Amino acid sequence: MAAATGDPGLSKLQFAPFSSALDVGFWHELTQKKLNEYRLDEAPKDIKGYYYNGDSAGLPARLTLEFSAFDMSAPTPARCCPAIGTLYNTNTLESFKTADKKLLLEQAANEIWESIKSGAALENPVLLNKFLLLTFADLKKYHFYYWFCYPALCLPESLPLIQGPVGLDQRFSLKQIEALECAYDNLCQTEGVTALPYFLIKYDENTVLVSLLKHYSDFFQGQRTKITIGVYDPCNLAQYPGWPLRNFLVLAAHRWSSSFQSVEVVCFRDRTMQGARDVAHSIIFEVKLPEMAFSPDCPKAVGWEKNQKGGMGPRMVNLSECMDPKRLAESSVDLNLKLMCWRLVPTLDLDKVVSVRCLLLGAGTLGCNVARTLMGWGVRHITFVDNAKISYSNPVRQPLYEFEDCLGGGKPKALAAADRLQKIFPGVNARGFNMSIPMPGHPVNFSSVTLEQARRDVEQLEQLIESHDVVFLLMDTRESRWLPAVIAASRRKLVINAALGFDTFVVMRHGLKKPKQQGAGDLCPNHLVASADLLGSSLFANIPGYKLGCYFCNDVVAPGDSTRDRTLDQQCTVSRPGLAMIAGALAVELMVSVLQHPEGGYAIASSSDDRMNEPPTSLGLVPHQVLDQYEREGFNFLAKVFNSSHSFLEDLTGLTLLHQETQAAEIWDMSDDETI
Amino acid sequence: MAAATGDPGLSKLQFAPFSSALDVGFWHELTQKKLNEYRLDEAPKDIKGYYYNGDSAGLPARLTLEFSAFDMSAPTPARCCPAIGTLYNTNTLESFKTADKKLLLEQAANEIWESIKSGAALENPVLLNKFLLLTFADLKKYHFYYWFCYPALCLPESLPLIQGPVGLDQRFSLKQIEALECAYDNLCQTEGVTALPYFLIKYDENTVLVSLLKHYSDFFQGQRTKITIGVYDPCNLAQYPGWPLRNFLVLAAHRWSSSFQSVEVVCFRDRTMQGARDVAHSIIFEVKLPEMAFSPDCPKAVGWEKNQKGGMGPRMVNLSECMDPKRLAESSVDLNLKLMCWRLVPTLDLDKVVSVRCLLLGAGTLGCNVARTLMGWGVRHITFVDNAKISYSNPVRQPLYEFEDCLGGGKPKALAAADRLQKIFPGVNARGFNMSIPMPGHPVNFSSVTLEQARRDVEQLEQLIESHDVVFLLMDTRESRWLPAVIAASRRKLVINAALGFDTFVVMRHGLKKPKQQGAGDLCPNHLVASADLLGSSLFANIPGYKLGCYFCNDVVAPGDSTRDRTLDQQCTVSRPGLAMIAGALAVELMVSVLQHPEGGYAIASSSDDRMNEPPTSLGLVPHQVLDQYEREGFNFLAKVFNSSHSFLEDLTGLTLLHQETQAAEIWDMSDDETI
Repeated sequence: MAAATGDPGLSKLQFAPFSSALDVGFWHELTQKKLNEYRLDEAPKDIKGYYYNGDSAGLPARLTLEFSAFDMSAPTPARCCPAIGTLYNTNTLESFKTADKKLLLEQAANEIWESIKSGAALENPVLLNKFLLLTFADLKKYHFYYWFCYPALCLPESLPLIQGPVGLDQRFSLKQIEALECAYDNLCQTEGVTALPYFLIKYDENTVLVSLLKHYSDFFQGQRTKITIGVYDPCNLAQYPGWPLRNFLVLAAHRWSSSFQSVEVVCFRDRTMQGARDVAHSIIFEVKLPEMAFSPDCPKAVGWEKNQKGGMGPRMVNLSECMDPKRLAESSVDLNLKLMCWRLVPTLDLDKVVSVRCLLLGAGTLGCNVARTLMGWGVRHITFVDNAKISYSNPVRQPLYEFEDCLGGGKPKALAAADRLQKIFPGVNARGFNMSIPMPGHPVNFSSVTLEQARRDVEQLEQLIESHDVVFLLMDTRESRWLPAVIAASRRKLVINAALGFDTFVVMRHGLKKPKQQGAGDLCPNHLVASADLLGSSLFANIPGYKLGCYFCNDVVAPGDSTRDRTLDQQCTVSRPGLAMIAGALAVELMVSVLQHPEGGYAIASSSDDRMNEPPTSLGLVPHQVLDQYEREGFNFLAKVFNSSHSFLEDLTGLTLLHQETQAAEIWDMSDDETI
Repeated sequence: MAAATGDPGLSKLQFAPFSSALDVGFWHELTQKKLNEYRLDEAPKDIKGYYYNGDSAGLPARLTLEFSAFDMSAPTPARCCPAIGTLYNTNTLESFKTADKKLLLEQAANEIWESIKSGAALENPVLLNKFLLLTFADLKKYHFYYWFCYPALCLPESLPLIQGPVGLDQRFSLKQIEALECAYDNLCQTEGVTALPYFLIKYDENTVLVSLLKHYSDFFQGQRTKITIGVYDPCNLAQYPGWPLRNFLVLAAHRWSSSFQSVEVVCFRDRTMQGARDVAHSIIFEVKLPEMAFSPDCPKAVGWEKNQKGGMGPRMVNLSECMDPKRLAESSVDLNLKLMCWRLVPTLDLDKVVSVRCLLLGAGTLGCNVARTLMGWGVRHITFVDNAKISYSNPVRQPLYEFEDCLGGGKPKALAAADRLQKIFPGVNARGFNMSIPMPGHPVNFSSVTLEQARRDVEQLEQLIESHDVVFLLMDTRESRWLPAVIAASRRKLVINAALGFDTFVVMRHGLKKPKQQGAGDLCPNHLVASADLLGSSLFANIPGYKLGCYFCNDVVAPGDSTRDRTLDQQCTVSRPGLAMIAGALAVELMVSVLQHPEGGYAIASSSDDRMNEPPTSLGLVPHQVLDQYEREGFNFLAKVFNSSHSFLEDLTGLTLLHQETQAAEIWDMSDDETI
C-alpha cells in the first residue's frame, strides 16, 4: 500500500549518531607519531577505532580511538566491532580550518558505495564502518583540534516505519532470545571473532538462525515479503538505532530490495547486567526500503560530527590541563629538539645527544652556561664538581644561582647547581659533588689537605669520569685541568675544554687515544715522532681525532700553582660578561657536533675553512708519557706531581729538554750572527 | 744619685700600646679607593687617624681610622688628636705576607728621628704620631687582612720611675687642676685646635701655665733640676701612660735632657663624667731621662701590633658577615666590572653601561639571555614586554624560568622575567609589561582586539620607548618588530635587533637618525638618493651611524602576518640551543661597544675586518617615508598599517614601484635573450 515514495501516515526511521571518544592515549600516540614519524607529512594515515554494544543505558554510542589506533594489526577489544578510519593530520591550524570537508566526505562515501556495488562489503562488512578524523595537533600548547566524521550514505528518501521500534522481548519469546544469542555466538566462534557488525537472521517460534551477509542468497532462498537483518548496535536508545545501521540499509536496499517488500531489523544490544547476559533490550522494527538496485551514482552522504555547542564545527581538547605536569614538561622539551629533525637536520641522531652523560668540572660562569645549553639539547644526565661556595657576585654571571643562594656564607656551588637543574626541569638527573680536584704544585701532604683526602679525591674523580661519557673542563685555573685531562685520556672519554680571557676564549676538544685493545703499537707515538709526522705532511691539514692534543700539549711550562700571588683582577675571571655564554654555548655545540660524527671523539679535525689561516682549535698531541706513568703508578705518581714544583712534570714530559735545546739554539744563533 | 744607667731599686716606666680601631667605614672606603682609584697601584698612600683621651675607664687606648681616613684635609673630630699614617695596600695576599715589616718600621722610625733631630717635631709635634697600616683587601670575599704599626723609638735603656705614677688629684690641688684646664683650653683656642698632643707645663701653688714645645727655651728659662711636660694621653690605666708619650720622651731626652735631671710627666686625660669635666684622673709621675743629646743614629724602634691571639701576626676582619647582604651583592657585582678597568680596559666608561635603561621587547629565548648578559654588565634598569605565558618547553631554553612557572597555564613571561631578575640581584630595577605589540597585517578593528585596545597598546609602547635608552627587538616574528622600530627611530633611541635561524642568527643595531633639532635638511635623505650616495662611494666602506638602516631596510616584502599557516616547526623557533645564548650575548656586547663609542648610536659602522667580504651587519637606510607618516599622522596611520595587507606599506615605501621596475627589467632581459 505504502508507495516507495513514503507514506506520510507512517513515522520515519531516525538514527542516533556516534559520539567520537578520543582517548588521552590516542592524543599521546598522535603526538609521538607526529614528532618522530609523520613530521611534516600530511598524507592520510590509516587508523582504527571500535565501538561496543554492551553499555549501560544512558551512555551515548561512542566510536573510541585509543593509543592502539595507529596499529592496524592491533586486536580489537573483545566483543567490540572495529571501524577503519583515515586520519588527516594537518601541519597548520590554517589548513585544518580550510580543509575541504565536503570533498573528504564525498571521497569516503564513494569508497563505501563502491564496496557496496562491488560486493566487497558483503565479504567484509567492516568496509561499511568507515570514519574520518581531521586533526591539528598544537604540540606547543597541547591543544588538539579535531573533527570526526562517520560517513553515512543517504537513502533517496526517508524510511517509513511499518512496525516498532519495540524491545526485542516484546516480539521474541525467551526461547527465541536464547536461540538468537546462541546462534550469534556460534557464528562469531566460527568466524573467529567476538563480535559481528552485520548479520542475517531467520527465525520461527522454535529456532533462530544467523548468517553472514555474503550468504544472503543461500540463507534467504527465494523471494520473500520480508527479511530480517541484525546489526551490532552501539546505541542505547529505545526508539532509535545507532549510526552503523545506515550504510547497512543502503547495502540492503541496493543489493537486495528487489527481492522483498520490507525489512525487519534487529538492533542487537548485548550487555551484562548483574552478572547475567542481557540482549532483551535490543530493539526490533520493520521498515520499507526504497528500490535502489539500479542506481549507479553514489548517494549523498552525511557524517561530520557536531561540536559541543551543537553546531557544525571542530572540537578542541586541551590536554595540558589533565597531563602530569612533569611528563608534560618532558614531552615539551623533546618537542623543540625533535622539530629540528623535521625539516632542518633530518639525519640528526638525537638519542646520541639526549643519552650522553656529562661531567662538568666547575660550576662557575662556564659551568652554569654549559649546563643550561645541555638542558636545551635535552641532555638528562648532568653532574657537577666544584669546591666553591656561591658568592654575592656570582648570580648575575652564573645563571644557575640567585641572591638567596649567597646568604649565610653561600651554598656549595655543585649542590646548588644540581638543585637548580631539577627546578628548571624535573626530568633531569642532576647531581653535585662538593669536592676539590688535586692539582700539580698544590702540595697535599701537609696543610689541611691530607694525603689521604687527596687519595680519596682522586678515586672519586676517577669513578666520576669512568661513569660519564663526556668530561667538560670548566675550571678557573690551568692546573686544575691537569688531573681530569689525564684520567679522561686514560679512560678514553671525550674531553671538552673551555677557558676565558677578557675578550678571548678557547673551546676545544681533547684528542681521544685509540682504544687500548688495539695494542701498544697503535697508541699515538711519542710526541717528537708524531710532530715530525705532522710537520712532514701538511701541518694544519685534517688531523684524525686520535692525533689531536690536549690543553697542555702546546704549553712550554708545566702546570703549577697559579693561584698564589695573584691580584684581585687575576683571581676573578675578568671577562666581557657575554663571553662565558658564548664559550659555554660553543662548548656544548662542539660536543653535539662530535657526537653526531660517525667516529665520535675520533672524528677528524677539519681545517677546511678557507677564511681561517690558523690551525684548528686544538693541535699537538696527548702527553702520553704522563699517561703511561699514570696508568702504571696510579696515585703514587699523582702524589709526586701534586707536591712537586714544575720541574718534575717538565722533566717527565721532555719540556726540560726542550728548554735546554731552545737555549742552545739561541746561543748558536747569536754566535752565528757574530761570525757573519 | 741614681746614675743614667738606671737604678735597680726603682721600678721602670712601661707604656700601654694602642689598639687599632678600624671602622667598617674605613674598609668600605678602602674598597672604593682600591676599585676605582688605586687599582693595581701599590705605592704607599697617606692616611689619617685620631685618638681620644676622654674615654670611660676600662676602654683601651685606640687609634681610630674611619671612612675619612683617606682625606688628609678632613677635620679631626673635636677634642681628638690626629695621627698621620702610611697605608701599604698590597695587591696580593702573598705580598702582604712577605712585606718587609722590619724595613717599613725602620723607615718610619727614621722619619720620626729626623723630625726630632731637625726640630721639625718641635714645630709640628704631630710628626711624632706616625703610624703604618699594611693591608690586603680580598674584595671577592670581603676579607680584610691588616697589620697596624705605631712606631715608637726606644730609649737606650729603660726609664727609672722617681715618683708615681699617681692620680693628678693626689699632687695637684683642685685649684691647680682648674688652672691647668684653663691654661690648656686657652692654648688650644690660641692655636685654633681642640686638642694638643704634647705641651709644656709650669706650675706653682696658684698658677699653672702651659706652652707649645717650640717655646721650650723661653718657657723654661735657664737650667732647672726638673721640667714638667704634658701629653694628651689616650690611655685609661692608672699605672701606665699610653703609647704617644714614647716618642715625646725620646724628643725630650735628645733635645732637652742636658738641661735638667728628671722630667715630670702629666698624662692629661680629659673626660666628661655625668655632665662635668674631669681631668683629675690624669696621672702624673717623674722619670729620669738618659742623656741622648749627642746620639746621631736612629734608635731602634718597636710598634707592630699584636693580633687577637696575642702573637705577632696580622689580623683579619670578615665584613661579609656584618654587611647588609643586598648591599654586599651590589658591591660584589660592581667588583667584577671595575676589575676590567684595572688592567684590561682602563678607559672603559662603566657608568655609561650601568646607567643605561634597557627595554627588552620579547622575554623568550633571546630576551632571557639578553637580560642575563645585561645583568652581568651591571645594567640596573631592565624592562620586559611580552604577551606570552611560560610553557613547559621554555625553562630549558629560557634561562629566567623554572618548571613551577609553567604550572596552571603558565605565568605571564614579562612579569615572571622581572621577578626572576629581582631574585638574582635585588639591586636591579626590573619591570614587566604583559602586553601585545600591534603588528602590520594583524587587523585590530575586529576580532577580540579592539581598536581602542590597540591605541592603548601603541601609547603604552610609545611611553616605554620614550622612557628607555636602548630598545632590544627580541621577538619571534618579523612584523612585531615593525612598530617599535618606527617609534624608536622617531624618538632617536638606539635599537639592537637580534633574530635566530636554525644555525644562523643576525645581531644588528639600527641606524640612528640625526637629532631633529638639526633641521629637516639634516635628516637622512630619501633612500634612493642615499643609496646612490653610498653606491657612488665604496659600498661597504665605513658608514656613519645615521646612515645605517634597520631590520626592514633590505627587505623587498613589507612585514605582514607571518604567524598564519605555520607548521609546528615554523611556530617554534627551531634553532641549535646554544645559538640564543650566543646571539643574546653578542647583542649586549654590541650595545656596550656602541655605548662606549664617543658618538654612541651615531658611531661609524666599521667594515675593516679583512676576512669579511660581506657587508657590515646592517646596510641601507631607515625607511623615512614611514617615519614621516608616523610622525605626522600618529595612530591613524598605524591603524591603517595594522589592518592593511602588504600593499599599503609596500606602496608607501616604494616597494611596489621597486617590484614593478624589477619585473620590467626581467621582461627586458628575456626579450634581449631572444633577439640574440
